Amino acid sequence: METSSPYRYQQLADLIVGMVDKGALAPGTRLPSVRAFSEQHRISVSTALQAYRLLEDRGILVARPQSGFYVATARRGTLALPSTPRARARASTVSISGAVAGLLEHAANSALVPLGCAVPDPALLESKRLDLALARVARQQGMRYNVYSPPYGDPRLRQEIAKRAMRFGHALAPDDVLVTNGCTEALTLALSAVARPGDTIAVESPTYFGLLHTLEVLGLKALELPTDPTRGIDIGVLAGWLETGSVSACVLSSTFSNPLGATMAETDKRALLELLATHRVPLIEDDVYGDIHFGGKRPTPFIALDDGANTIYCSSFSKSLAPGYRIGWIAAGKRMQRVMERKLAFSLCCPALAQAALAEFLASGAYDAHLRRLRRVLEENLARMTDAIESSFPPATKVSRPAGGFVLWLELPKRFDSRMLFDEALEHGICFAPGDVFSASRRFRNCMRLSAAYAWSSRIEDGVRQLGQLAARQLDR
Amino acid sequence: METSSPYRYQQLADLIVGMVDKGALAPGTRLPSVRAFSEQHRISVSTALQAYRLLEDRGILVARPQSGFYVATARRGTLALPSTPRARARASTVSISGAVAGLLEHAANSALVPLGCAVPDPALLESKRLDLALARVARQQGMRYNVYSPPYGDPRLRQEIAKRAMRFGHALAPDDVLVTNGCTEALTLALSAVARPGDTIAVESPTYFGLLHTLEVLGLKALELPTDPTRGIDIGVLAGWLETGSVSACVLSSTFSNPLGATMAETDKRALLELLATHRVPLIEDDVYGDIHFGGKRPTPFIALDDGANTIYCSSFSKSLAPGYRIGWIAAGKRMQRVMERKLAFSLCCPALAQAALAEFLASGAYDAHLRRLRRVLEENLARMTDAIESSFPPATKVSRPAGGFVLWLELPKRFDSRMLFDEALEHGICFAPGDVFSASRRFRNCMRLSAAYAWSSRIEDGVRQLGQLAARQLDR
Repeated sequence: METSSPYRYQQLADLIVGMVDKGALAPGTRLPSVRAFSEQHRISVSTALQAYRLLEDRGILVARPQSGFYVATARRGTLALPSTPRARARASTVSISGAVAGLLEHAANSALVPLGCAVPDPALLESKRLDLALARVARQQGMRYNVYSPPYGDPRLRQEIAKRAMRFGHALAPDDVLVTNGCTEALTLALSAVARPGDTIAVESPTYFGLLHTLEVLGLKALELPTDPTRGIDIGVLAGWLETGSVSACVLSSTFSNPLGATMAETDKRALLELLATHRVPLIEDDVYGDIHFGGKRPTPFIALDDGANTIYCSSFSKSLAPGYRIGWIAAGKRMQRVMERKLAFSLCCPALAQAALAEFLASGAYDAHLRRLRRVLEENLARMTDAIESSFPPATKVSRPAGGFVLWLELPKRFDSRMLFDEALEHGICFAPGDVFSASRRFRNCMRLSAAYAWSSRIEDGVRQLGQLAARQLDR
Repeated sequence: METSSPYRYQQLADLIVGMVDKGALAPGTRLPSVRAFSEQHRISVSTALQAYRLLEDRGILVARPQSGFYVATARRGTLALPSTPRARARASTVSISGAVAGLLEHAANSALVPLGCAVPDPALLESKRLDLALARVARQQGMRYNVYSPPYGDPRLRQEIAKRAMRFGHALAPDDVLVTNGCTEALTLALSAVARPGDTIAVESPTYFGLLHTLEVLGLKALELPTDPTRGIDIGVLAGWLETGSVSACVLSSTFSNPLGATMAETDKRALLELLATHRVPLIEDDVYGDIHFGGKRPTPFIALDDGANTIYCSSFSKSLAPGYRIGWIAAGKRMQRVMERKLAFSLCCPALAQAALAEFLASGAYDAHLRRLRRVLEENLARMTDAIESSFPPATKVSRPAGGFVLWLELPKRFDSRMLFDEALEHGICFAPGDVFSASRRFRNCMRLSAAYAWSSRIEDGVRQLGQLAARQLDR
């Protein structure tokens, strides 16, 4: 982690993180009091407290009442966390489409052990109630809905979506919401509303390959920001780039990011928003995994922290309920008019019956019970997959520890070639996502993503173990 | 009609058309024999015959066995046909989005007499069987379909679409078809696959405002080709532009075009395809109205005439069955890979259940009976609307006579302002489409489009008559 953060308290926080990482501060160690710390570093007490609170927020420190701050005890798992990649010297032209199409084709092949695609198993999603709502509305009101949906989307669905946003502390009106063909269309609309071909977009690195593919097709360049597997992007590096005036927008999936599973601390999110607002660079937020949190509280998305002033929020129901329905949404604030014009131009409007059915399902209140069940299952899946990795992959393997979502990011020694493993794995009937598709500059060839989105079974477990053995064999050669 | 066509037989055909238009050749007149005509113009007999056959193809001449060629007797209707606009000196940057969004908003307002939106009345579409298929598949196979559809679309639906293409004489394999979110997405994918921002696209003039809007958002310029209300675009004008090398693609809705209802003769279509192939300029065909033909035979689309060598075919089920389902498709031949990459980037894939239901409906054979009924109703609607126009609009009004589809194009004297009528009509609770939204250069302010897509009723008829009276009053001022 570089210490180029723009704020003093962040620099001090980074200093402490470095000491924890190097073992200089062991788990359980008590830190100097806030006053002592402020005197040591010649800063105000409030700045010292800010540094400690930031680390508490990130889960690195724990505050004990009447006692002070302690280094958090290590989390479960014997494997180390993946490392944060170094910053790149320049933005990359993206050329990834062939790799993406190839991967999606394999990921859709049900004959393969499904560790490749980040889409939940239909058997886990249990969409029966939603499907019955669709059947009912099609049977009873088919004629009423055989029209072009209003361009912004079904009014009842927009209302239900706006109501749900209240749960993460953001007041949205139904009029602030536009329904899209999944989060992919939402991201496309957002990007084309704020950037032109040739522009540079700052993204996490590694990041979701679908986003890179969209950047490529829109003729946009990717600026890959070093991303820590728990804390998210390096704000200092972004700050440096913003100074150059060459960044048109920032796309972040800051909560349970894909593939790292990183979640930025709320303090970091606020600092980032302030930085972007200063430079008048819009933030496009992809919050598609936000509802799948294992902790009691859903991490607050950016849009709730800046009241949407500079954030275009994109999400969908594809990761948590209904990938088959292709329903996403976007809240673009003052940029809504431009987004709406693009929606009209690209696909006019969304299918009417599916929107009506989803509105009915959400209004019934069934979604929350559904999410509670799904979170438990996916958390359990990730734990089992982590166990399988620890007992079968080479000991030098590093693995992410996301607090939500359903993917794991593995880092193996530099000489490991995940493309070679990919080809071998296909021969063994196993699919996963090789690391290089998560980077515009094709880094991460020694990394891989495994998805734990299918009901746990011996087939899945054996698939993971077999991958581990193949990886070990490759490294032994 | 300019006589700048690249082929001699077309020039001679244009000469005859001019004589018919000016009354020099009255309906029913017998033309010189092919031999006499060839001697008059010092051309071969086969060129003379080609000119006559072209005009027969266009419905201007009629061949009587053992007797020769006659000028066709005038079609029904007392009002003249709209005039063909003059060619423009340059391509236009498009700036129409505000007008389009405004129009769509009014068109969706069910309190208004619906003459504005070119979408059929759900009551006419009778989508019950399709809706029941959707209800059945949602109830019985919801889990199976709660997955991302394969990127190209549901295999069964692609097969049914390919089978239907056989009916207009084009052999398509299921693999040649990609399912889209309506024809709008198909056109967006096609345009972004063959053109880059700043490029010039040749279009009909007047043309569908949605296409102009898509060009605007993609940063493309519109080259407006003079379009005859029965014969379609002026190939000679296009030929001149192609010589300059400045046209990147051509988008045509050559069968029952929107708004003119023009249909290019097959001979003209072939000549156009040859011309475009020579200049290596791709044709994007919007055939969304092709299935709604009033004559016994469906006009052959471009794709069947060049076997898809240089044609990207776009269509949907929105005009003939299910606007609410948003299912369209594209057949892009050798450009399929690029189109597919854009589909992945823009919206990933289409909803799964709706595709399965449509495949089932098409496989049942119900679509053909449905189309036969719908064509009769819409033809009757257009006849009734034409009658209402003739008896209420000022006598100088010109009106189109489409042989399919469900819209009419009206041209009033130059001083008529359809924008002013639009505002007055809204006050009277009537919606229609003012002429200027059909042109990137905002021509046609003295024109308007009326849609006859709703079940005929005294409300519709009164609406048309009231528009006629308001128009007459405006011209009397």
